[in-house]
Amino acid sequence: MNTMTRIEQALEAALVANEGAGCPPKLAAAIRHAVFPGGARIRPQLCIAVAMANGDTDPALADAAASAIELIHCASLVHDDLPCFDDAPTRRGQPSVHKAYGERLAVLAGDALIVTAFQTLGAAGGRHPERMAHVLQTVARGVGTPLGIIAGQAWECEPRVALSDYQRAKTGALFAAATAAGAQASGGDGETWRALGDWLGEAYQVADDVRDALADPEQLGKPVGRDVALGRPSAAIQHGLVGAVEHFERLVQGAIDVIPDCKGAGMLRQIVRMEAERLVPKAWCANIEALAERAAVRAAERSAAPTQTA
Amino acid sequence: MNTMTRIEQALEAALVANEGAGCPPKLAAAIRHAVFPGGARIRPQLCIAVAMANGDTDPALADAAASAIELIHCASLVHDDLPCFDDAPTRRGQPSVHKAYGERLAVLAGDALIVTAFQTLGAAGGRHPERMAHVLQTVARGVGTPLGIIAGQAWECEPRVALSDYQRAKTGALFAAATAAGAQASGGDGETWRALGDWLGEAYQVADDVRDALADPEQLGKPVGRDVALGRPSAAIQHGLVGAVEHFERLVQGAIDVIPDCKGAGMLRQIVRMEAERLVPKAWCANIEALAERAAVRAAERSAAPTQTA
Repeated sequence: MNTMTRIEQALEAALVANEGAGCPPKLAAAIRHAVFPGGARIRPQLCIAVAMANGDTDPALADAAASAIELIHCASLVHDDLPCFDDAPTRRGQPSVHKAYGERLAVLAGDALIVTAFQTLGAAGGRHPERMAHVLQTVARGVGTPLGIIAGQAWECEPRVALSDYQRAKTGALFAAATAAGAQASGGDGETWRALGDWLGEAYQVADDVRDALADPEQLGKPVGRDVALGRPSAAIQHGLVGAVEHFERLVQGAIDVIPDCKGAGMLRQIVRMEAERLVPKAWCANIEALAERAAVRAAERSAAPTQTA
Repeated sequence: MNTMTRIEQALEAALVANEGAGCPPKLAAAIRHAVFPGGARIRPQLCIAVAMANGDTDPALADAAASAIELIHCASLVHDDLPCFDDAPTRRGQPSVHKAYGERLAVLAGDALIVTAFQTLGAAGGRHPERMAHVLQTVARGVGTPLGIIAGQAWECEPRVALSDYQRAKTGALFAAATAAGAQASGGDGETWRALGDWLGEAYQVADDVRDALADPEQLGKPVGRDVALGRPSAAIQHGLVGAVEHFERLVQGAIDVIPDCKGAGMLRQIVRMEAERLVPKAWCANIEALAERAAVRAAERSAAPTQTA
């Protein structure tokens, strides 16, 4: 079974387990809307890839770790899209959860997804309960306080924050959890593998800033130009587009360099390079100035046109 | 150490563990605001009491179970108080979290509390990892979908719901988790002890409806008359006040009757009776009609006075 199929089946199983009789139907629908159809599923893919590089000795636990991380990522998108944060009308090319189901069900769907994530993990500890406890701590560390993605989002409520601290918490923490948890699920050492997630997470956030500044909304499936509009820390704003792309390339190389020597190292390097190309195509790098100019023109057109949020 | 001291210390330890260097200070403060000072801590008290009735054979796990349940209860209060739900200006006699720290930090503080709850549980599995996994499933079942408190809150977004289903999920589920998890933490049978929480949870919700209809806001530390104002299902509305108080007394007797025979049974019956008196004093029952009349006068005065939400 390929990794993507494995991930989708594990997510489906996690949701089905909690949709039993007596569930309020709108809440169940809002939760599904948040998880399917998915985005790139990059975090669970990383988690499974690292579990495989470590021998995949407990596939059920690796699947649970990957699902937990993706469910929590989905929860964070639902809450970040709320009117009090980004007020995003769309996500993954469809209406955001609060647009489709209302703000109350968006709050509750996010909460339920966090619970389901830990429940899924807890249920997968049958063969290796100690491993499961380690994975749970790793996932919780990537999500909560002081340094997880919730803390990262909370930095937006502080008067000042260092860009790298903000990015490390807001995005890097869950990438680091994905690689560390993947290793732990297979009995490997989480700390050795955490560095790969750290580098990739920062690269991913820089790529997101570049794409936010450059891309068409149709390509991304979500509104663009939000960082500027919301006054949010952004690599593309701080370093300029050319500087941000160069920074991205250094981070990707850093990720490739910290992959530990192991049987799966070659496959993992390949995954990192492909993901880098998907995020910031080499063709963009060659034409970055022309692209920046086109993006500026589009932004000016958008701000002149009447706002569409339906 | 008495139970209340034990609970407060366990909650303090759970929070301190996640306030390390690098935590956004406003988020850390909002989380503390949600947990301290506490309310009656009835759920963790029940959890510890049942753990003790089962021999208290792993106090660290019992403390973690009690803390997890109380942290999740606090999270649910923070999210229920949000503008999109009750828009409550006060809670436990102080400003609600969203009033004190803003809506964004209230969303994130609730999220972080859910994560901390499961993290606290996961960290307490050292001596009995299998017990911990059972406790985790019990807590998750009490919180999430299909029948936990999040599902209970989501019933408010459906066009119709049976009062008893709504109350069982919104309040009863976490009480049932408290008694079941307390038993499991001590190696007892969760299912045997779940019934006590079921009865008490329903009693507690009926008491809450009665107090919402009767009490002064100064006594409760939160606004009153919200069920009517928000069109929410309520025993006091459905059965009338006299009927609701009679229903409450039947539920308390039901709780006392299902306490399994064990060394701690006498102490537990005593706790249930004291809690019942705290919630709906016998003196109220004797004068329920006069009290209802006074409450109606106060409600009329409130609706005539200008709204105060500061």
